[in-house]
Amino acid sequence: MANHSIDIQKLISGDRRTLAKAITLVESVNDLDRKFAQELLQKALPHSGKSIRVGITGVPGVGKSTFIESFGQFLINQGHKVAVLAVDPSSPISGGSIMGDKTRMEKLAGLDNAFIRPSPSSGALGGVALKTRETMHLCETAGFDWILVETVGVGQSEYEVASMVDFFMVLMLPNAGDELQGIKKGILELADAIVVNKAEDENSTQALRAVTQYHSALHLLNHHGFWTPEVHKISAIKNLGIDDIYEMLNRYLSESKKIKFFDQKRHQQSKEWMNKLTQELLEIKLFSSQDSKKLKKELEEKVLKGEVTAYQAAENFINQILP
Amino acid sequence: MANHSIDIQKLISGDRRTLAKAITLVESVNDLDRKFAQELLQKALPHSGKSIRVGITGVPGVGKSTFIESFGQFLINQGHKVAVLAVDPSSPISGGSIMGDKTRMEKLAGLDNAFIRPSPSSGALGGVALKTRETMHLCETAGFDWILVETVGVGQSEYEVASMVDFFMVLMLPNAGDELQGIKKGILELADAIVVNKAEDENSTQALRAVTQYHSALHLLNHHGFWTPEVHKISAIKNLGIDDIYEMLNRYLSESKKIKFFDQKRHQQSKEWMNKLTQELLEIKLFSSQDSKKLKKELEEKVLKGEVTAYQAAENFINQILP
Repeated sequence: MANHSIDIQKLISGDRRTLAKAITLVESVNDLDRKFAQELLQKALPHSGKSIRVGITGVPGVGKSTFIESFGQFLINQGHKVAVLAVDPSSPISGGSIMGDKTRMEKLAGLDNAFIRPSPSSGALGGVALKTRETMHLCETAGFDWILVETVGVGQSEYEVASMVDFFMVLMLPNAGDELQGIKKGILELADAIVVNKAEDENSTQALRAVTQYHSALHLLNHHGFWTPEVHKISAIKNLGIDDIYEMLNRYLSESKKIKFFDQKRHQQSKEWMNKLTQELLEIKLFSSQDSKKLKKELEEKVLKGEVTAYQAAENFINQILP
Repeated sequence: MANHSIDIQKLISGDRRTLAKAITLVESVNDLDRKFAQELLQKALPHSGKSIRVGITGVPGVGKSTFIESFGQFLINQGHKVAVLAVDPSSPISGGSIMGDKTRMEKLAGLDNAFIRPSPSSGALGGVALKTRETMHLCETAGFDWILVETVGVGQSEYEVASMVDFFMVLMLPNAGDELQGIKKGILELADAIVVNKAEDENSTQALRAVTQYHSALHLLNHHGFWTPEVHKISAIKNLGIDDIYEMLNRYLSESKKIKFFDQKRHQQSKEWMNKLTQELLEIKLFSSQDSKKLKKELEEKVLKGEVTAYQAAENFINQILP
C-alpha cells in the first residue's frame, strides 16, 4: 500500500519528494490507494494544465534520450522546469529499452528543475496512458511547465501519447527510406514535426536528403489544420539545432493559442479520453464475465460459419446481456 | 413498405429484378421490412461470400466511373459477373457526385452480367456500410463473382469500404504532390494499390513521375503483411493498363489464398464488424436517452473546467446509467 498522506501544499510548492510519493500513489493499482489517489488528483486539478506538453517518439537507437537530455537542459537554461515521462507499454519486460534507464539522462537528472520518471507498469483500466496522464497533472501541479512525454513507436503507444500532448514530434535517423527504420504505418500522420537526428559528420548529406524526402512524404499526406508539419535536422549529441526546435515549438504555441486551437485541442482530447474510459468501464462491467465471453465467442463462430449475419449476432448478444 | 415476397430460388438463379427487389428490402428502415430483410439474409448467407470484393476510392474527377466502366467490361469479357455498389455518406445530398448517376456507366449498365446499384441513403444503425454489406451478400447470392465497391474518399467512407473488401485500390491523378488532389490523411495506408489514372497523351511524363513519387511514399510508410502495395498507371478512357490491374488482382488473390491470408482477413473483418455493431447497439440502448445525454454533457463540462478528472467523470457516468 502506498503512502496516503500527501501534502498538497508541498506538492504545489514543487517539492520533488512529495511529487515522487504522489506519483507512486496514482500508479498503485490497490483499490484503497486508488481512492486516495483520486482525492489527491481532485485537489491537484485546479493547479494543473499550465504546461506545454510535447510528445516524442522514434525507434530505439534514434537518440530519444540524448535529445531529451539536450533539449531538457536547453529548456532549463531558458528558465523552465522540465518533467520527463514515459509511455512504454512494454516497460515491465524491456525496461531498459526506453526510460527505465535513468542513467542515460545523467546531466538532466542532476538538475534541480528537472524531474524524470520512468514508465509505470501497466494498470488495468486506461492502462499506462491513464497513469501517465495523472502523473502529468501532478507534475503540472508541482510547477513543471514543460512536460516531455517519450514513447517508443510500437503498438498503440504513439497514438496514446499523441492524444495527450499539445505537440507531437517524431525523431528519425538520417537514412530515410531505409526499411530498417521500421517506421510504423500511421506514425507520420500524427507528426507535427519530424526531427532527423544524428545529422552530424559523415551523416550530413544523408540527413539533408532525408529532410527532403520526409518533407515530400508529409506533403503527400496533406496535413489538415492550421499547422503544416515541419521537418528539421539536429544533432542531439553535438547540441546542434536544438534552438531551432525550441523556436518552432514557441511559434506553434503562439499561433495555436492565438487562434484558440490550443484550447480546442485540449478540450477535444479531454472529451475523447473521457469517452474512451467510459467505453472501457462499460466493457469491464458488461463484457468481462465468463458467460458474456462465451456467448460472444459462440456468436462469432456462427458469423464465421455464415449461419447468422454480423447484425443478427450483435443484436442477439446485446439482447442477452442487457435484457 | 417494401415487397416482402422475395423468391430466394430466383435470387440464387441470378434474376436481376429479384435482386433489385431484395436490395430495396434490405435498404428499408421500416421495422417490419427490417424483420423480413433479416430472414431473407439468413437464407441468402449460405450462398454468399464466393466473390472477389474490390474497393475503389479517389477524389471526384479522378475517373472512378470511367475506370469501373472499363474494368467492369474487361471482367465480363473474362467470363465474370460484376456488381458495382457504392458507399457514399453524402449521397442523399450530392447524389450525382459518385454513383447516383448511372448514366456515367452506360455501356457496363447495358450488359447482362453487370449489376449497378447506386448508394443507399444512410440507415440508422451501421449506416450506409450496413446496407452495402447486406447488398454485397445479396449480389453474391445472385452469382456475381466480382463486387466493385466504390467510394469517394471523404470522411470515414474509405475506412468503411476498406473494412469490407478483399483488396483496396486508390485512384490518383497524374499530378502527384499537387495539394489540389486533397488526398486524405491515412488513405495511402489503406491502399493495396495506387492506380494513377489519365496516364495518356500530354499527361504521360507527369504520370510516370507520379508513379515514382507514390512508390517512394508507400515505401516510407512501410506496409506490413505479405503484400507490398503496388503503383500502376492506366488510362481508363483509352483502356490502357486495365489488363495489368486484372493481372495484379489475380496475383494478389492467388498469393493471399495460398497462405490463407484471404480467409483470415475476411474472418477478421467479420469479427470487427460484429464488434462495431455491438458497440453501436449498446450506445443506442444506453446513451441515446435525453437523461443520459444531459448527464454526459454535465460531466464533460466538469472535466473541461478541471473540477473532476476524466476518470472520475467516466466512472460517475457508468454508475448512474448502469446502477
